[in-house]
Amino acid sequence: MKMDKLVGERFKEKPADCVIDSHALMIRGGYMKGVANGIYSSFMPLRRITRKIENIIREEMDAIDGQEVQFPVVMPASLWNESGRYESIGSELCRFKDRNDVPMVLGMTHEEAAVHLVKEYANSYSRYPFMVYQIQTKFRDEGRPRAGLIRVREFTMKDAYSFHTSQEDLERYYKICYDSYNRIFSRCGIPEVISVKSDSGMMGGNVSHEYMLLTPIGEDSIAICTECDYRANMEAAESIINNTAEGEDEPLEIVYTPNIHTIEDICSFLNTSLEESCKAVVYQKNKDDKYVIVFIRGDLDVNETKLTNYLKEEIHPGEITDDSGIYAGFIGPYGIDREKYTVLFDKSLKGSHNLSCGANKPEYHYKGLKISRDIGEVEYVELAKIKEGGICPNCGKSSIRLSRGIEVGNIFQLGTKYTKSMNMQYLDSEGNLQYPIMGCYGIGVGRLAASVCEAHHDDYGPIWPISIAPWQVQLSCLRSDDENCKKVSDTLYNSMLNNNIEVIYDDRNIRPGAMFSDADLLGVPIRVIVSPRNLNDGVCEIVSRDKSVNEKVPVDEVMNFTENLIKDMFEKINK
Amino acid sequence: MKMDKLVGERFKEKPADCVIDSHALMIRGGYMKGVANGIYSSFMPLRRITRKIENIIREEMDAIDGQEVQFPVVMPASLWNESGRYESIGSELCRFKDRNDVPMVLGMTHEEAAVHLVKEYANSYSRYPFMVYQIQTKFRDEGRPRAGLIRVREFTMKDAYSFHTSQEDLERYYKICYDSYNRIFSRCGIPEVISVKSDSGMMGGNVSHEYMLLTPIGEDSIAICTECDYRANMEAAESIINNTAEGEDEPLEIVYTPNIHTIEDICSFLNTSLEESCKAVVYQKNKDDKYVIVFIRGDLDVNETKLTNYLKEEIHPGEITDDSGIYAGFIGPYGIDREKYTVLFDKSLKGSHNLSCGANKPEYHYKGLKISRDIGEVEYVELAKIKEGGICPNCGKSSIRLSRGIEVGNIFQLGTKYTKSMNMQYLDSEGNLQYPIMGCYGIGVGRLAASVCEAHHDDYGPIWPISIAPWQVQLSCLRSDDENCKKVSDTLYNSMLNNNIEVIYDDRNIRPGAMFSDADLLGVPIRVIVSPRNLNDGVCEIVSRDKSVNEKVPVDEVMNFTENLIKDMFEKINK
Repeated sequence: MKMDKLVGERFKEKPADCVIDSHALMIRGGYMKGVANGIYSSFMPLRRITRKIENIIREEMDAIDGQEVQFPVVMPASLWNESGRYESIGSELCRFKDRNDVPMVLGMTHEEAAVHLVKEYANSYSRYPFMVYQIQTKFRDEGRPRAGLIRVREFTMKDAYSFHTSQEDLERYYKICYDSYNRIFSRCGIPEVISVKSDSGMMGGNVSHEYMLLTPIGEDSIAICTECDYRANMEAAESIINNTAEGEDEPLEIVYTPNIHTIEDICSFLNTSLEESCKAVVYQKNKDDKYVIVFIRGDLDVNETKLTNYLKEEIHPGEITDDSGIYAGFIGPYGIDREKYTVLFDKSLKGSHNLSCGANKPEYHYKGLKISRDIGEVEYVELAKIKEGGICPNCGKSSIRLSRGIEVGNIFQLGTKYTKSMNMQYLDSEGNLQYPIMGCYGIGVGRLAASVCEAHHDDYGPIWPISIAPWQVQLSCLRSDDENCKKVSDTLYNSMLNNNIEVIYDDRNIRPGAMFSDADLLGVPIRVIVSPRNLNDGVCEIVSRDKSVNEKVPVDEVMNFTENLIKDMFEKINK
Repeated sequence: MKMDKLVGERFKEKPADCVIDSHALMIRGGYMKGVANGIYSSFMPLRRITRKIENIIREEMDAIDGQEVQFPVVMPASLWNESGRYESIGSELCRFKDRNDVPMVLGMTHEEAAVHLVKEYANSYSRYPFMVYQIQTKFRDEGRPRAGLIRVREFTMKDAYSFHTSQEDLERYYKICYDSYNRIFSRCGIPEVISVKSDSGMMGGNVSHEYMLLTPIGEDSIAICTECDYRANMEAAESIINNTAEGEDEPLEIVYTPNIHTIEDICSFLNTSLEESCKAVVYQKNKDDKYVIVFIRGDLDVNETKLTNYLKEEIHPGEITDDSGIYAGFIGPYGIDREKYTVLFDKSLKGSHNLSCGANKPEYHYKGLKISRDIGEVEYVELAKIKEGGICPNCGKSSIRLSRGIEVGNIFQLGTKYTKSMNMQYLDSEGNLQYPIMGCYGIGVGRLAASVCEAHHDDYGPIWPISIAPWQVQLSCLRSDDENCKKVSDTLYNSMLNNNIEVIYDDRNIRPGAMFSDADLLGVPIRVIVSPRNLNDGVCEIVSRDKSVNEKVPVDEVMNFTENLIKDMFEKINK
């Protein structure tokens, strides 16, 4: 490929609407162009990167006995009605009617399509286990697309679905897939990706892992133990609080607290700590707007995913109206109507005493609350967000750190959610009908490309690993108007093409500075520079984009040197 | 791959709803499964075939300097408003609103997206010419999906767009693309595909070609000259009629023709030929239901595409109502209200005389009509379908044959339709703003797969060419319960895997008949059969799916023989 023919513009300035580096660099480098909110077209360099990522994924999926199939982008709503997801998923599922008024959806994942495809085939235990996968365009109508390819509406995703006759077999294969994912991320140049336990949310099932690239610009929060190997996303991380109830029990006492509304204010007014307070957090059910009141220790926050999972329905932050019967800032567990409202107690309150809390009438709070004494037996539910410095659920030390990350892949143990709802069954060896157990495994291709860029770039552009770089070599002819310089460059270009080296050749008649900044933006790992000055010494300059290599190499050894450097780079990445 | 792990069922019986062989065989062979009307999921064998086709196309597009890009499946309607296609395309364009009520469309082709992507980049003549292409899922909401993968609603298509600064340069590149397409079809195993001139319809532009696989099950009609190399689809084939007006002019005379309605009946009543009659064909404009009356020689039919293109609007067959002012069976050009109706004369009437035709009142016809004498000067328009045995527009002989074909690809000279409407301009070498000239080039991947199957199959299954076959070798162990037979088969399987031969291994403990019929349905070009009987003679049987090879080969030469056979097959196809 010649640089002067490469379609796409490169820009010096960071575009105003780019908040993260990978987004800015991929716009500046002519990798992609926005077509609509969260919808992009890719230029050749990005398409080459995503194709290489797709091929790495394909090789690794084939290596664990995956069978590549293809599901449709457009599916009939009836298929999604079978699983119940047509109803249960919100407006991120794109729904429309075809010319015959048949309701259709755009696929955001393909569990239903996978079950539909294999349902009749997999009617006997002898046909298990198996895994099918596809690499296909998906559409998820995100409310807030952001950060370039990190959160888009249209994206290419590898989605895989495995089918098993026992939980043990699923777990065996899940482990194989887990390792396969680590290989994929290593081969794409980001071995630093970590796996974390996650909440599987609307996907159903129980055990699941997310693969996270830790970076401050990530939109997910992860709890990581500094003392053991515990790692979980915020939704899955159990918040452990050991209340010791030190000191004497105080009596329950009502206190006049004019103009005091927040839990911080009441604690400072009563001269107690947040740990000795009971805060109310109010939600409403989406279905009927009924109130859900969560009581939680004053220093903690409610994890809404945990709450949604516990309630098994969608909620939104509560709006406290005049006729609600509750008073914002004065809600407490003592005397609240537990028939009228859904009242939940977070585990952080268990074993505590001498709590301050709202008194359910304006301008008043209680102090000295002890739930077991004053309210009686209540069920404690795990609803709190884990805190920085919190207790590790694995090793028990107060060693939790919170980090941010980009989710570059995920694996789920789905269980029988889809096979049951879609009535997929097989005959076991005893002739009984059973529901197969599923696993599913996803990787977003574009997001992975952006994550690699996020992890490996400098101020001047991405530093692509050789395995997914748009080209392996950038050949720069610094003076195309110099006959010898041009001749040597042309010869090298043709040798590289003949030796199947992926080369992009820049022989434009422009300043070296402009040529190098374009090359930096393309992020090609090896740069071969031909200049009249070096040719006077019979050499070319070979530098790597990551600056680890910078050599002057005799002209007739350039090909050999380059080929070996490519090999070294691949070996390093596949090590 | 082992056959007992291949997901997908194979069936003995032809499915009731399959009208063409490729559809029936691809369902019977476990290649695909219908998800909705015109929407399919692919199993592994079909996905392997389409991937190979995609790679052949990709190689050929890259070889003619194509740059692979990717456009979105989902696009904002605003982009399609720019070109005018949002309005001009009917219900085959899938329209919907996203969560924010923004109107969106599903891409059926990507001219708009291509212009959008390159618009800013290609602002100077020095950046031309270039071509971008993608291989991507498309959705066209066909009214009547049919024939399996031949006419579907969702499909994978390679679509390419080239941009030029002159018509000459477009024509130069068009020719390059034309040749590239011939190579693609040859490499996919159907060199018999022919190119025909076509009407470019809603795509805009003028010159275009369709690539046709001739087959009776094709849904397109093609006019082929048996005397020269003229080939055109029915929409593009000019119908040439040389009227000689033999004999004396007769006077115009009204005739009472009770109960006579059809043109055949009136000719037989008046004892004249169809060639001496003038038939009326009535349409209505979709827009306002206004009548369009086409007069045409009685032995010919109206080509509705030609009519639509001439009118530049959509029409439908006319329904003649009581208050229409015209009388079905009695409509004629003499005395008809040419203000009230759009009246058109086909070229087939030019130079004729002594015509019989309707008299525009019930129960009456005229005979002896001579248009130039009785009606005066009229414009003759080319609206007729070319006939079997008709005159070739190229060599002038009466040597036209009509054939049916499947369109497997097309190439268009688009002109400036999209660049003008979307205001894409560049500065020419004199500093003037100009609109670039576009070409576009499509191939449907799934339809191509089905066409190859249509061209190459027998009653038992497809006969895949080596270049796109799901596997190269089918290894059949006829007696997996025989220790030696199993051992030899296993060894061969591993050798083939180690030598990168794409092999599917059938060691199921089933009858040879069942094993062979499954193999026939998979259509793998080379079959290596290991049986105890042949092993007694120290040989394996190697047969090709197309029956041209049938050899007994010593066991230790099987690998060598197979590798050579694969090489031969590839050479034959790439010759």
